[in-house]
Amino acid sequence: MKKNFYKNKLSEDFIITNYLKKLNFKKKGTFNFDNDGSYLTLKKNKKLVITTDSISENLDFFKNDDPKSIAKKIITVNLSDLSAMGSYPYAYTLNLFLPKYINKNWLNIFTDELFKMQKKYKFYLLGGDLSKSNQLKISATFFGFSKNDKVTSQNKLNSGDDIWITGNLGDSYIGLQILKSKLSIKNKKLKNYFLNKYYYPEPCMVGSKLNKYIKSSIDISDGFIGDLKKMLKYKYGAILDINKIPISKNLNQLLNLKKIHKKNLLNTGDNYDLIIIANKKFRSKLLSIAKKEKVKITLVGKVINDVKIINDSDKPLNISKEFDHFL
Amino acid sequence: MKKNFYKNKLSEDFIITNYLKKLNFKKKGTFNFDNDGSYLTLKKNKKLVITTDSISENLDFFKNDDPKSIAKKIITVNLSDLSAMGSYPYAYTLNLFLPKYINKNWLNIFTDELFKMQKKYKFYLLGGDLSKSNQLKISATFFGFSKNDKVTSQNKLNSGDDIWITGNLGDSYIGLQILKSKLSIKNKKLKNYFLNKYYYPEPCMVGSKLNKYIKSSIDISDGFIGDLKKMLKYKYGAILDINKIPISKNLNQLLNLKKIHKKNLLNTGDNYDLIIIANKKFRSKLLSIAKKEKVKITLVGKVINDVKIINDSDKPLNISKEFDHFL
Repeated sequence: MKKNFYKNKLSEDFIITNYLKKLNFKKKGTFNFDNDGSYLTLKKNKKLVITTDSISENLDFFKNDDPKSIAKKIITVNLSDLSAMGSYPYAYTLNLFLPKYINKNWLNIFTDELFKMQKKYKFYLLGGDLSKSNQLKISATFFGFSKNDKVTSQNKLNSGDDIWITGNLGDSYIGLQILKSKLSIKNKKLKNYFLNKYYYPEPCMVGSKLNKYIKSSIDISDGFIGDLKKMLKYKYGAILDINKIPISKNLNQLLNLKKIHKKNLLNTGDNYDLIIIANKKFRSKLLSIAKKEKVKITLVGKVINDVKIINDSDKPLNISKEFDHFL
Repeated sequence: MKKNFYKNKLSEDFIITNYLKKLNFKKKGTFNFDNDGSYLTLKKNKKLVITTDSISENLDFFKNDDPKSIAKKIITVNLSDLSAMGSYPYAYTLNLFLPKYINKNWLNIFTDELFKMQKKYKFYLLGGDLSKSNQLKISATFFGFSKNDKVTSQNKLNSGDDIWITGNLGDSYIGLQILKSKLSIKNKKLKNYFLNKYYYPEPCMVGSKLNKYIKSSIDISDGFIGDLKKMLKYKYGAILDINKIPISKNLNQLLNLKKIHKKNLLNTGDNYDLIIIANKKFRSKLLSIAKKEKVKITLVGKVINDVKIINDSDKPLNISKEFDHFL
């Protein structure tokens, strides 16, 4: 169950605890709603991993966005959940709430991109439904498997464990800032780099390969620090080396130009990379698998017993409010 | 995949054929989108039946409707699909698009009713997600099993097969007409009977019990004639005995008062009973199972080779346009 929050309203934690948790009947596969996904045990040791996620107009995309971008988002937001759970996709269902402005051309581009993503990541559409709507909204429910039948948790960890990040932080956030005219970049190539990272996210599918060697994993859709806190369950803390937080060469250019501060990248959303927590004895194993899979993976810190997040000079990190899709 | 249609826009058939069908990769479990649901074959002969359906404010319910009614609708619309496929529910996921007016009281009543339905029909909530929205919309994806691992189709049938209806037609439609002030009923008890049938639908879960003996089944959510035509694939026809179309005693009162004509009940929506097509050799078997399950089941006609729907006096039935959720 997703952990987002209402603004000036009930928190989702509150809703889950008071209204929804009673509905899971404490079945094992629900993780008592502490995970983004869940699984169905079908036969001995055979688990079907299931995750569902929605995207909405004005929240996750805008009305006039390229339909290819919207297709990429509904797939990526779900695939990165499957990956975080250590699984690879198998099939999905789709609920489409379509406003009047949806036309043939839109549908063509949208479904062509779905088709491409399906071919690339090897899954197929199992069914769905359509309704009319005043705003475009899309839900998808994904079904996946893991090779070893282990479903990776979001919050199994111990003090001393390594904290890793896949890919780079912040590129997509910069794209959104450019779109919102909060950041101006004259260099066209550079500007397009960031815009593309925002519009056309790709999931990091290394989760199913690393599955065997990691304790916990989450996709960073809601911001690195916020998602890390969820993993730590407000029970553990972390020491992070800010200098090691991975960013792209292009983003590094902006840092050098003092266009942005690195700390501001730690809670940026619209990022579909993974935070991974693993025993340090698997350090070389993780690096070698990531290398083989051509995925960038960076060790950024370790889990500690204190409930605080500090940088390596022992100063508490002052991080602005977590990014929150539900605000 | 649901068969509804756009108004003044692309038909859903068109969308499915031209945009979505290519996405199913002709996998068997999708029924090539000719069914409302689909299945995943997991191990030898083990099938997980999956169906997904959404409801929306101003379409399937109204903003100030009792949250209990909305909970009943999202569950019933999905359970009746599972039942039509010959299966019983096991678990589900929920996508909630919540507007600002949703408060604690609303959530309390809504989730209490979900809880009751889950207890009654024995399934649990597996996960889900929340998003904010300007209108209330809910998607649910249901997972079910059938006892004999047969997934009932919507359109396997032969000339001469029996056509059955479970329950009664039209009660819910009358409720909606009262709400819309298109029909006035002074008798309070009678009025409330119809309103309750509209607000608090129950699914007809006899499908999994009849599974072994039937060829095809569909839930009548979009109107009897429209759904029957889907089953017949515009390739077969039917002879119906209008006099046998099952209606409640209360609705019969309205017919006697000439408040309504029976023909007008044949395409009324918001009904979650089943149309069942079976070989006539199972007639007594179906009747005895239905009796045991305390479900009303009525033989209303038979499949013919001609592509027309006629009544038993051989006159073509003039039915007004099918009810359509997607209009």
